[in-house]
This record gives sequence, C-alpha cells and structure tokens, in this order.
Amino acid sequence: MKYSIGIDLGGTDIKAGLLAANGKLSCRTVVSTRVSEGAKAIAARIAQTIHQVIETADAESHPREEEKKEIVGIGLGAPGLIIADSGIIHFSPNFPGWSDIPLLDYVTAELDDLNLPLYIDNDVNVMVLGELHHGAGVGYENVVGLTLGTGVGGGVVINRKVYHGSWNTAGELGHTVVQPNGRKCGCGNHGCLEAYAGARHIVERAQQQIASGRKTCLNPERLTPKQIAEAATAGDELAFDIFSETGRYIGIALTSIAHILNPQIAIIGGGIAAAGENLLFQHIRGEFTARTMDIPGGMEIVPAKLGNNAGLVGAAMLVYNN
Amino acid sequence: MKYSIGIDLGGTDIKAGLLAANGKLSCRTVVSTRVSEGAKAIAARIAQTIHQVIETADAESHPREEEKKEIVGIGLGAPGLIIADSGIIHFSPNFPGWSDIPLLDYVTAELDDLNLPLYIDNDVNVMVLGELHHGAGVGYENVVGLTLGTGVGGGVVINRKVYHGSWNTAGELGHTVVQPNGRKCGCGNHGCLEAYAGARHIVERAQQQIASGRKTCLNPERLTPKQIAEAATAGDELAFDIFSETGRYIGIALTSIAHILNPQIAIIGGGIAAAGENLLFQHIRGEFTARTMDIPGGMEIVPAKLGNNAGLVGAAMLVYNN
Repeated sequence: MKYSIGIDLGGTDIKAGLLAANGKLSCRTVVSTRVSEGAKAIAARIAQTIHQVIETADAESHPREEEKKEIVGIGLGAPGLIIADSGIIHFSPNFPGWSDIPLLDYVTAELDDLNLPLYIDNDVNVMVLGELHHGAGVGYENVVGLTLGTGVGGGVVINRKVYHGSWNTAGELGHTVVQPNGRKCGCGNHGCLEAYAGARHIVERAQQQIASGRKTCLNPERLTPKQIAEAATAGDELAFDIFSETGRYIGIALTSIAHILNPQIAIIGGGIAAAGENLLFQHIRGEFTARTMDIPGGMEIVPAKLGNNAGLVGAAMLVYNN
Repeated sequence: MKYSIGIDLGGTDIKAGLLAANGKLSCRTVVSTRVSEGAKAIAARIAQTIHQVIETADAESHPREEEKKEIVGIGLGAPGLIIADSGIIHFSPNFPGWSDIPLLDYVTAELDDLNLPLYIDNDVNVMVLGELHHGAGVGYENVVGLTLGTGVGGGVVINRKVYHGSWNTAGELGHTVVQPNGRKCGCGNHGCLEAYAGARHIVERAQQQIASGRKTCLNPERLTPKQIAEAATAGDELAFDIFSETGRYIGIALTSIAHILNPQIAIIGGGIAAAGENLLFQHIRGEFTARTMDIPGGMEIVPAKLGNNAGLVGAAMLVYNN
C-alpha cells in the first residue's frame, strides 16, 4: 500500500504522522516548535520528525522486503499566507517576523538523504483536503470548509483540488462581510464573519449582553466559548442566543459563498463547531435556507469529521493534490 | 483566419454576428424573438439567423476558395439558469413558463445541413468571457464580472474558463449579501447586492429619500437611473448620494468576492455602470480598498469595454471555452 507523511506545523508543536492510502493514520510523533529559535532550526526539527516517522514505519513493517511500506511523499500544513507553488511562508500570525521564508527549501536541505517530494499549504486548506478525502467530504468535488477557532479560517476545493486563487489568498471565508457596519475585525474591516464567530468575538458579544443587564448564569470574567456553550445547553437564554446568532451569521456568509461559488457541501470544524447541532448547526442551516436562491442541487452544511487529525491527514493528502 | 458565430438571445431580439479570431465582429443581424410562439419557433429563428450570418460571410468572402472564411462553431448566450453541458435552459425570467427546455437540441435539429459544434451559456457568463478575450480582461486568467441592469448579473472565470460551480449557479454575484437586514431582493432574500444596485432598487432608494423631504431637482414620478445619474452630474446632492452609496454596496460585495475567490480583476458593465468614474467607480474602489485584506496582487476594478457587443463577442468565444 502507498503511504504519505503529513506534518502539522503550529506555533506550539510540530506533529507528524504516516497516512495510508486507506486513510489510516499511524506513527504519530510530536516535538515542540520553539518559534524563538527561528525558521532554520524549525526546519531541522521538521526533518527530524520526518526521519522519526520513517524509522517507526520501517520498524513496524513486516521484515519481508515486498511488504515494506512505500512512502511516496511528504505534505506540510502551516498557518498563514502560504505560497504553495514555491514553498514559501509569506507571513504567518504564529511566526512573528517571518516574511517570505522559503521553508520547503530549508526542510529539503535537511533531507538530502531522502528522495521524496515535499509540499506545503495553508493549514485550513489542508483541513478541507483531509475532510474531502477521508472525512465529511468523501464523494464530493466542490467543497468549502470553515474552521471556527480563535479566527475563522476557510478553504475552497474545486474539482477535488485546493483552489488558491490568483495570489494564494482565495478561501479567506472568515472575511466574508456579514454586517457592513458591524463589529471591527482583526483584519481592519468591519463586519467580517470572523468578527462574530471568532472565539474572542463570541466572548465579547456575550460580555456586552451581560453588561447590558441581561439575566444569565455566566460570569463575564475569563469567559470562554466552551462555558457559553455549556450554559446554553443548560438552558441559559443569553448563552443560547449568542450561539444561535453566531449560527445565523455563519448562514449569511454561506449564502454569499453559495451564490458566488455554488459548492456541493460546506464542512465546518474547529473548537467552536463542537457546540453542535442544537446550538449551532440548525441555526446555520435555517438562515442559509431562508436566504439562498433555489439552487437545483442545494448545498449541504455538515460538521467536520476528522477533528484534531484533519491537519495531519490533509497535509499527507497534499502529496496527491499536486 | 478562424471565425465563430455568436448569438445573443434576449426576450425581445435575437442578435447574431460573426467574430474573427482577432476580435472583429461583422455580419450582424437581428430578428425579433417573439417569445409567445414558443421554444421551437425561437429555435427555428435562431437557425435562420445562423444561416443568414453564414450567407453574408460567404458573400463577403473573396471568391478564391482558399480565402473562404473558416467558421469553426456557434455559441449562444441566453438569460437564466442554463445547464451548459447539456444545452438546456432550466428556467429564464425572460421566457416565462420555460422549464428544462433543450434549446440546443431544438436548434441543432434545424441545422442538420451544417456540421458545426453549438454551445450555450448564461448571458452574463458570456459577457465576462467576451471581456476576457477581447475587452477589459485581456491578459488575465481569473476574472469576475458584474452587469448592472434591471438585475445585477455575475460571472466567474477561473483559469480563463467560465466557472459553473456544481449546479450551474456559480457567479450569482448579485446575490452576495451586503446588508443582512436590508432591502428585500427579488430572489426573496434580504440585503442582496441586487436589492441596492439593480435599476428598480436605485430608483426606489431615490424615491424614498425624496419622500423623506430631502431637497432635490428630481421628480419621483417615472424616475430612471439615467435621470438620477444626470442630476448627480449636474450637482444634485441626493442623486449623487444614491450613486455613491450604490458604489459602496458594490465595494462591499467585491470585498467578500475577493476574500472568497481572489480574482485578479473585476469587470463591471451594464447600463448603470455608464454612470462612470465620478459617480460610481471611485466609490466602489474606495470602499473595496478600505475593507479588503492586504492581498499581495490586489484586485483591479474596471469598467467593461465591449458595451452592447459583449453578448455577441462572448457567445462566439464559447466555441473556444469548450
């Protein structure tokens, strides 16, 4: 069977794993990123995890040569604006100061004993690719993905390939405008989806409601989206309204996205998406259905399936995307 | 030189013309559509215009056989939801009652003496294709187009091909949400771009301002966007505000479109776009620039160049799009 290696490069950890063609992930390994040591040191540690995955894979292989695992390539997902074609990190919020870092060249220089193709892409593009091949997107060709976390990330797949647009910035779905005179977004614009559905913004919206005197069991200090979700599930009306409104804003963004791109399915993952059907997804679908034109095939809206594995699975699938 | 025939099927007229590979349009002919006579009669008249274009082309050709014009195919643009692959008009606001009409089959049946491939697409997709090859989009790969008329049409070109999406409804850019609790759109949704920038909506917005008692030289009776544009140019403040606000809403929609698709250029045509730089385009660009993330290559926003010829030129270019 064919295998590929996936690397999930984050600001805290470098995760790596081996993905079989059937979607099974094994040989997982994690090392610390240690951002302060700089890009070349990080590239060296990425190379180290790659070697470690290969050694583990070899050790687990059956001793007969013909059953040796055939590794066909390596894929790497990283946050930020990635120039996929040239393997460059243009900039990344998780790596302050990095500007047009040729990360793939750095990693390749550390891997001169290996003769494997190496690919890189944005972590949300990679998540959508993982879901497409081994998660909620299996069987579809045209897919959009949203990750609801600190920010709201997005990715677009067209004809089963990540679509990068003209300058590698397609799929910034978190910056679809949902309320033109609305909340200020981290990007500088007003009323982006992220300014409603990003973790900090969900908390701030709840805090504003609490400050306005609405009855709630929530404590505005050190509030988290998870606490709001739990309170909503326990029957707190304010908390429920925050999540249903979040869902409606996601539904508004998906209306624009459906009219522009006409995908078959929208896959929604990330920590906030764990709020689930009653708090979130039914409100997304309700708003979307009320607003969207009668598209012959419609658009499904579903939760992501791969959870924390999406980054590794998707990164490994970059090998087949290229 | 190679030539292709373009047909622009509208609710009033069927226009046809011959397009040379260098973009020169000739042999134009127009017949009445006569919608009430039904799809098969219209298909027969389309075939008649095709024959007429070919006869004119032959008559204009130099008598020496080797200089005969080589016609390589026929393209047809039509309003509505067109299933391009199968040559079907799924529905069209200009042809009431039509449902899944296999128009290309009907036309082909009337053309059995000719052995030319025949293509069909939505009229706005066709306009964008025309601009791409012979208008404001020359030299670009990823283009979006808007037509500002009775409705607000849209089209998306990716890698120099019309992008249809999953069910032929990609590019409905007029139904990008720009004001979620805003004006009711003809599609049923609230706050679509079309509900601000469509002709009727521009007039209604002006009438509401007049009714609210604002000073203006405009007469609210039988008002047209053209009159508003003329008053704005003559210094009428209310009229100017209507157009600058229209521009800002277009800028909001283009912000979402740029973040989702990352095209190189947006081309804006249709009657309302004739309002031009001072009334419209500077406000579109101002709003877009204020709202959009720092995209490495940016996105140009320009007026369409082909005017009324875009439909014929683009339809003829369908032959090369396929």
